[in-house]
Amino acid sequence: MIIIMKTDATPAQLEAAVAYVEEHRLKAHVVVGEERSIIGLVGDTHEFQPEQFAILDGVETVTRISRPYKLASREFIPGNSSFTLGETLIGGQNIFIIAGPCSVEDRVQLLETAYAVKEAGANALRGGAYKPRTSPYAFQGLGEEGLAILAEARQATGLPVVTEVISTDDMPLVTRYADVLQIGARNMQNFALLHAAGESQSPVLIKRGMSATIDELLMAAEYILSHGNRRVMLCERGIRTFETSTRNTTDINAIPVLKSLTHLPVILDPSHSTGHWQYVPAIARAAVAAGADGLIVEVHTHPEKALSDGGQSLKPEKFAEMVQQVRAVALSVGRSLNSQ
Amino acid sequence: MIIIMKTDATPAQLEAAVAYVEEHRLKAHVVVGEERSIIGLVGDTHEFQPEQFAILDGVETVTRISRPYKLASREFIPGNSSFTLGETLIGGQNIFIIAGPCSVEDRVQLLETAYAVKEAGANALRGGAYKPRTSPYAFQGLGEEGLAILAEARQATGLPVVTEVISTDDMPLVTRYADVLQIGARNMQNFALLHAAGESQSPVLIKRGMSATIDELLMAAEYILSHGNRRVMLCERGIRTFETSTRNTTDINAIPVLKSLTHLPVILDPSHSTGHWQYVPAIARAAVAAGADGLIVEVHTHPEKALSDGGQSLKPEKFAEMVQQVRAVALSVGRSLNSQ
Amino acid sequence: MIIIMKTDATPAQLEAAVAYVEEHRLKAHVVVGEERSIIGLVGDTHEFQPEQFAILDGVETVTRISRPYKLASREFIPGNSSFTLGETLIGGQNIFIIAGPCSVEDRVQLLETAYAVKEAGANALRGGAYKPRTSPYAFQGLGEEGLAILAEARQATGLPVVTEVISTDDMPLVTRYADVLQIGARNMQNFALLHAAGESQSPVLIKRGMSATIDELLMAAEYILSHGNRRVMLCERGIRTFETSTRNTTDINAIPVLKSLTHLPVILDPSHSTGHWQYVPAIARAAVAAGADGLIVEVHTHPEKALSDGGQSLKPEKFAEMVQQVRAVALSVGRSLNSQ
Amino acid sequence: MIIIMKTDATPAQLEAAVAYVEEHRLKAHVVVGEERSIIGLVGDTHEFQPEQFAILDGVETVTRISRPYKLASREFIPGNSSFTLGETLIGGQNIFIIAGPCSVEDRVQLLETAYAVKEAGANALRGGAYKPRTSPYAFQGLGEEGLAILAEARQATGLPVVTEVISTDDMPLVTRYADVLQIGARNMQNFALLHAAGESQSPVLIKRGMSATIDELLMAAEYILSHGNRRVMLCERGIRTFETSTRNTTDINAIPVLKSLTHLPVILDPSHSTGHWQYVPAIARAAVAAGADGLIVEVHTHPEKALSDGGQSLKPEKFAEMVQQVRAVALSVGRSLNSQ
Repeated sequence: MIIIMKTDATPAQLEAAVAYVEEHRLKAHVVVGEERSIIGLVGDTHEFQPEQFAILDGVETVTRISRPYKLASREFIPGNSSFTLGETLIGGQNIFIIAGPCSVEDRVQLLETAYAVKEAGANALRGGAYKPRTSPYAFQGLGEEGLAILAEARQATGLPVVTEVISTDDMPLVTRYADVLQIGARNMQNFALLHAAGESQSPVLIKRGMSATIDELLMAAEYILSHGNRRVMLCERGIRTFETSTRNTTDINAIPVLKSLTHLPVILDPSHSTGHWQYVPAIARAAVAAGADGLIVEVHTHPEKALSDGGQSLKPEKFAEMVQQVRAVALSVGRSLNSQ
Repeated sequence: MIIIMKTDATPAQLEAAVAYVEEHRLKAHVVVGEERSIIGLVGDTHEFQPEQFAILDGVETVTRISRPYKLASREFIPGNSSFTLGETLIGGQNIFIIAGPCSVEDRVQLLETAYAVKEAGANALRGGAYKPRTSPYAFQGLGEEGLAILAEARQATGLPVVTEVISTDDMPLVTRYADVLQIGARNMQNFALLHAAGESQSPVLIKRGMSATIDELLMAAEYILSHGNRRVMLCERGIRTFETSTRNTTDINAIPVLKSLTHLPVILDPSHSTGHWQYVPAIARAAVAAGADGLIVEVHTHPEKALSDGGQSLKPEKFAEMVQQVRAVALSVGRSLNSQ
Repeated sequence: MIIIMKTDATPAQLEAAVAYVEEHRLKAHVVVGEERSIIGLVGDTHEFQPEQFAILDGVETVTRISRPYKLASREFIPGNSSFTLGETLIGGQNIFIIAGPCSVEDRVQLLETAYAVKEAGANALRGGAYKPRTSPYAFQGLGEEGLAILAEARQATGLPVVTEVISTDDMPLVTRYADVLQIGARNMQNFALLHAAGESQSPVLIKRGMSATIDELLMAAEYILSHGNRRVMLCERGIRTFETSTRNTTDINAIPVLKSLTHLPVILDPSHSTGHWQYVPAIARAAVAAGADGLIVEVHTHPEKALSDGGQSLKPEKFAEMVQQVRAVALSVGRSLNSQ
Repeated sequence: MIIIMKTDATPAQLEAAVAYVEEHRLKAHVVVGEERSIIGLVGDTHEFQPEQFAILDGVETVTRISRPYKLASREFIPGNSSFTLGETLIGGQNIFIIAGPCSVEDRVQLLETAYAVKEAGANALRGGAYKPRTSPYAFQGLGEEGLAILAEARQATGLPVVTEVISTDDMPLVTRYADVLQIGARNMQNFALLHAAGESQSPVLIKRGMSATIDELLMAAEYILSHGNRRVMLCERGIRTFETSTRNTTDINAIPVLKSLTHLPVILDPSHSTGHWQYVPAIARAAVAAGADGLIVEVHTHPEKALSDGGQSLKPEKFAEMVQQVRAVALSVGRSLNSQ
């Protein structure tokens, strides 16, 4: 059950409502939003009626929510939630495309790629400065130097920057440079990191863990939402199955399932979900046809020299072709791209 | 390695080529086709050169094939193979749609559905007369009575009939009634059945097993092809994974992967691959966007009363909407539907 | 719900009970056993009370069974069901060991291996004459010639023979030679084959499909049981998962889970469940420690020359060591081996 | 390739060796151990010969290691590595048993359980003060209060304490109280946490991620080892598969596979790997029969009231029975328990 306070509710009314909840042996989970506050009722709420709380002063409505995730649920917000990034609306009618290299490797490579993806129609630039790598001996990213290069590319192209944060220790630094914080698949259940992302003021792109269920992805988003950050987008990036002809198995079903369960924007990463650049355009088209709100795609000017994920990176000209194909599919399902 | 004989090669030339192969400690797997014969060389062919066999009388070309499947491989036939069914070309430019109930339950239900799916744009009628059911106590299909009803519906609507065969014993009967034999997911590695389907004169739709790899699906097709039947289409119908929010996980990656590996037509079954009718249109659109050549969809006039798979069956009006959406997506990727 | 008739119930009493069941809009699934008959009630039995049927003439007891499988359930037979094979009891206190090559390759190889596994303590001989192979070009088994060699080895060693049947067409021939019919993993849901095995008079060893759930394995056994054959043993042989360091993942949990759900004997195949001979003894010991009633193990005198599965076959001397290890573990859990 | 320095090598010799490595376009990853230092050579070492480095001053041996993990590999340390905890040797001949509740819930519960598991034969006490929970609304652990209760239980019983750390921020506090740091399955690829655990002076128990491959588990251990901490044990806790009759699928194969690949101690958690207390003793016996070096088991005095994981917790008397069974199996494979 969730109590939604009026926009003009006073702090005293909020406190009184919390006290009333706690008198009834429930825990009150308060989310103080910019416009209004919300109280999540945690515990066994079956024996209570919404009416009981709705009559308290300052309360607008009380809603019973059957899912384990509350704030992420469509029962909580029936429409689509959206937010702007630079000049673009995320979660609206238009498809949003993030593109760039797996890792920031050097200044020239990144700037070159940034101009190329902008030209091809990307709305944001991706690039990792901190890389979670299976091996301690693999390239771990350029760190702050990489963040600075990303900032320079933003300055040069106007593209907002999406980059991964892998540790609470790095959070202050990364939030200073990034427009969108990415939480990677391996950290989807790093709850300390989710908590910190929830307390940051930055939009968050959270990737599904490689063996996380859809419900677990929504619960991970709930961690961020419940700490006060409402600007969250979800990313399907392929799950781990027995099939070995692709790096992961794109769970395309997750697109309509998530769109039916949550109001949050849903995007797909066809580069990781296939692991082979040859299959990326087909899966990008499929994602948009299935209802995805956006894409995040790996693009590299010289994939054969990439320090990571070269095999799944598109060259800029292939990426440009992909954008044209995606544009046609978007129009066929009543949507369009942000870029011309 | 595969030896392709000339169209006018004599039986004696074929025999001589086989004898030559066997002298070299290889096994010769002969496929006598309508137009020409082919000899598959089984064994360690690495030490041989194609030229060695190409000079034999009656031989047209000799090709080294690196994949474990030979006849199914794009190395063997670089273009797309296709065949006609009724008035429709399968495997060509146009998207092919098969629709109908999971099981044939009664005459009225089937005729009603057949008219409805034809009206909505389907190119063939599906319906099971023999049902492979997990429980021995569940409805097992109407058997020959069901086949007769399917034949009546074909007569009435002109739609060719796709129906499952689950046993070699039923093969003669089913081939008498069906236009396309369906080999179900549970029988994908029932090699006796594949052998029999290969010897039949009917086109075959073979479904991927629920935990079969893409290579295993191609090897199953190879069984059919290698017994002389070239009219085979492959069907992705979802694989078994840890995710439980859908009945199966649609392996959308399989579409571009299969299209790159094989010349055979590839279709998708969004009803089984999702298990919920709500998600079927989104996944049907995705399949066509990703490059599928067709769809097979469960449609039922009264899903709530279906003896099997009601929850994943579309009502005719929803199916008609889906066809319109699929048509738009098909056009956006340079294809079209067979129906107007 | 299941109606168990008295041992001296007359055919007329059985008929009357069936008629009574059908009057109540339920289907009666009759199993005529050697000692007594059983009527399975199929349909919605929730509104009926067992007492209602228990008062009919000739009825001994009526039991409500909550599982989808009835005859396989521990609710139906609370104790362990067992049967003899040669001089050995399967499903009793003693551990039963089946060993031999993957395929029967030639007479000398098989006889050599048969003597060796008998000497090492095996209770039965395995060997495939009909092989379900992924590739149509791979060795498919010697067929009847292989069956004859198995019969000769039985004659020579006294070991009963376990061999696979892959088609209903081969059933009459295989039952003539085999002491135990094996239904392989790929055929676990080949319902025509299960039906035929149920009608045969031979004991059946049924292997779990590589992605079959435990419930589906029990339903497959139910097919056999419900067609009148009560001598069925279940075999865990590894399931398909994302892990690639072994051929399959041994689902060791399946041992205690199956032992809690069913009265049927449960064995494990560590050769297929690991795919590497090095790991076979460890997993054989684990199976017995977890409560398995037996093992089926691949042994080959010259694994490096085996036509199939060489890498997972133990040499006879390694197999003999394994038997000694298994004997020690069996004693530690209060069981013993059949052999000395 | 790994360069192992002599125990009396000087810092200058180490520096010179590093410089020599870097001159050859390789990266030198130096691990300064208590007894001796090791230099891991990262990069393409194929063109170099070990002899080339072996002649440098202060170098004892140079070993080429083919696996992606170096320090964790049996190629690096052929024997079993072991370390003491309290009075017990971990990784030696004896089986080591860790037991206790999922979470520390209150002082009385924990002390009661600690005395009970000690009495039954446990060698260490487990209990979570920081709980990684899927839902932000679930009980998150008592934090430092829980750590203090664990310390009191250690004082009272003499059992060393194993407890989870879920964030680098908590590391200083947790290391102050814990005898063994647990890295949970969800954090197996939280590389910042692995790095911090590697720099701590505490032994580490690292659990396999629910969809991590065996190689990925070894790479995670390598992170810890490569930051200077050699006291690491690995824990199989079940993987995520399609089977739903148990919470996870115990990958029993992982025991012999890990024992063949690594010198590190390997333990199994049958509580998480099954999710049902009824199956825990069978899987504990199987683990020891397969070669595991220890067990970690959930025990609760009142499972029905547990705040987490009640259904998979053994009552103390059932745990005591399990220990006796495990003792018998241990003896049958030539090992014994630490407790009497």
